[in-house]
Amino acid sequence: MAVARAITVVEEGGPEAIELLQALYAHTGTAHRVGITGPPGSGKSTLINQLIAHFRGRDISVAVIAIDPTSPYTQGALLGDRIRMVEADQDSGVFIRSMASRGSSGGLSYATHDAANVLDAAGFDYILIETVGVGQSELDIASAADTVLAVVVPGSGDSVQAMKAGLMEIADVFVVNKCDRPDSDSTYAAIQSMLELHSKLKDEWMPDIVKTIASEGQGTGDLAERVFEHRNHMIATDGLRKRQEQRLQYQIKKIVEKTIRSELWDETGIERLASSIRPVIDGELSPYELARSIVDKYRGP
Amino acid sequence: MAVARAITVVEEGGPEAIELLQALYAHTGTAHRVGITGPPGSGKSTLINQLIAHFRGRDISVAVIAIDPTSPYTQGALLGDRIRMVEADQDSGVFIRSMASRGSSGGLSYATHDAANVLDAAGFDYILIETVGVGQSELDIASAADTVLAVVVPGSGDSVQAMKAGLMEIADVFVVNKCDRPDSDSTYAAIQSMLELHSKLKDEWMPDIVKTIASEGQGTGDLAERVFEHRNHMIATDGLRKRQEQRLQYQIKKIVEKTIRSELWDETGIERLASSIRPVIDGELSPYELARSIVDKYRGP
Repeated sequence: MAVARAITVVEEGGPEAIELLQALYAHTGTAHRVGITGPPGSGKSTLINQLIAHFRGRDISVAVIAIDPTSPYTQGALLGDRIRMVEADQDSGVFIRSMASRGSSGGLSYATHDAANVLDAAGFDYILIETVGVGQSELDIASAADTVLAVVVPGSGDSVQAMKAGLMEIADVFVVNKCDRPDSDSTYAAIQSMLELHSKLKDEWMPDIVKTIASEGQGTGDLAERVFEHRNHMIATDGLRKRQEQRLQYQIKKIVEKTIRSELWDETGIERLASSIRPVIDGELSPYELARSIVDKYRGP
Repeated sequence: MAVARAITVVEEGGPEAIELLQALYAHTGTAHRVGITGPPGSGKSTLINQLIAHFRGRDISVAVIAIDPTSPYTQGALLGDRIRMVEADQDSGVFIRSMASRGSSGGLSYATHDAANVLDAAGFDYILIETVGVGQSELDIASAADTVLAVVVPGSGDSVQAMKAGLMEIADVFVVNKCDRPDSDSTYAAIQSMLELHSKLKDEWMPDIVKTIASEGQGTGDLAERVFEHRNHMIATDGLRKRQEQRLQYQIKKIVEKTIRSELWDETGIERLASSIRPVIDGELSPYELARSIVDKYRGP
């Protein structure tokens, strides 16, 4: 099955998706997953285009999953990033796919993990997962990636400050992009002092800061090298295996929760809820008592 | 118990929170809940300050819940909005509380619904819930509010376009704020044509567009009137009762899911998952098979 078609199948979910993912699963575990997070306009797509060029120059195949913020009802993805990245689309060692961030999670949709598994099984060496760095997606990217790049723009001030605490926990490499801007030295210094303050090493790795001007290709070779170094470090220290195990735990928890939700809230379940809500509206039963009885009924006698 | 303390209790969760919410529940159902959503910098806090002034002028008490985007690890809220709104803090008919958007939902945390119930039971006439309009929070606000205001800024271009499809489904009143900006007429016209295209009435209500310059108090009296009108319309058409019922269903579903998660992933559950993951790592079992057996075990014999 072609890769694009397989991703569509897992995006749609349902029994066909589970069957496919079960069959694929044994072939996963070799791709290196890189999360790239940063605010809108920080140049993530340009950076990714540059990384692709460096990877392809070493004959490394790359797949990109770009997560778009999505209207919760229409599930229509924004344009923009997707268009800017098509130039890489001609090469068979490169695969690019836009995916929606599903309403249900607010960050990465569960299908992102599944799509990454498809691309892993398809034999791509590196999988780049691009997310807009706001709130939940940071946490998600840490659970989805082996290496996390946090893109920061000089002079973006408060918003960077506010994100930092969370970023410090998850970033393996900081990228100060657009570093031809005036404030780039102070942004670099701010990240450095936060890193020193926060001196706890993650997987025995001291996060790096790389300065880039992605639009001119400056510093992006360095960045690619740092990604390789981080991967090597993670292999040498057994950190990679640990992250993969954590990811698997996370994935299993999500499958369990999704399975339970689909069993609870199928057509019968929703009808039963609607019909049993009357005593709550009339104030004879609290929502908590009704919820408890639904849980008890689900768990069986 | 003082209102602020009660909200802290429900934010912290646990048995004390459930006990409190059960006791409160019978006293809820009278406050009108207004959701205010819009991008960062659209002037939501200034609008809310103005609405508070109009409500207080009619001796209507108001509580505000401001949701801040939060770093997923530190749970520390951003400053800014909170500071800007303190001027209202002296009046006992006004209560303002900042809350975190919890990582788990990406949008409104479950505690937001609980806090709104506390404020409802405390007797506030109106509860304003302010969220940053990105992705998930739009959907959440529709489930949390009786009236939804969508704040749009002239000339914000693509981002507004992209949000519109989702906003059309949930907004009862559009607010074109900062309408002294050059593009305000075209933004107004764009919303109007989207509304005509989308002609389906929600609860027999045709969404309105109100132009404001909140920083100068222009148009905000009109906006307050439209909120009252929408409430009256909703009462007259029985739409309010329907929304309250939907909200209750949503709330019960969330309580059920939260209860199940806490039962599944308690200390024992996490240990059991970690110890049963070996065959999956070794490729003898798929994640789906392990997940199925966890669900089956949870559901009992």
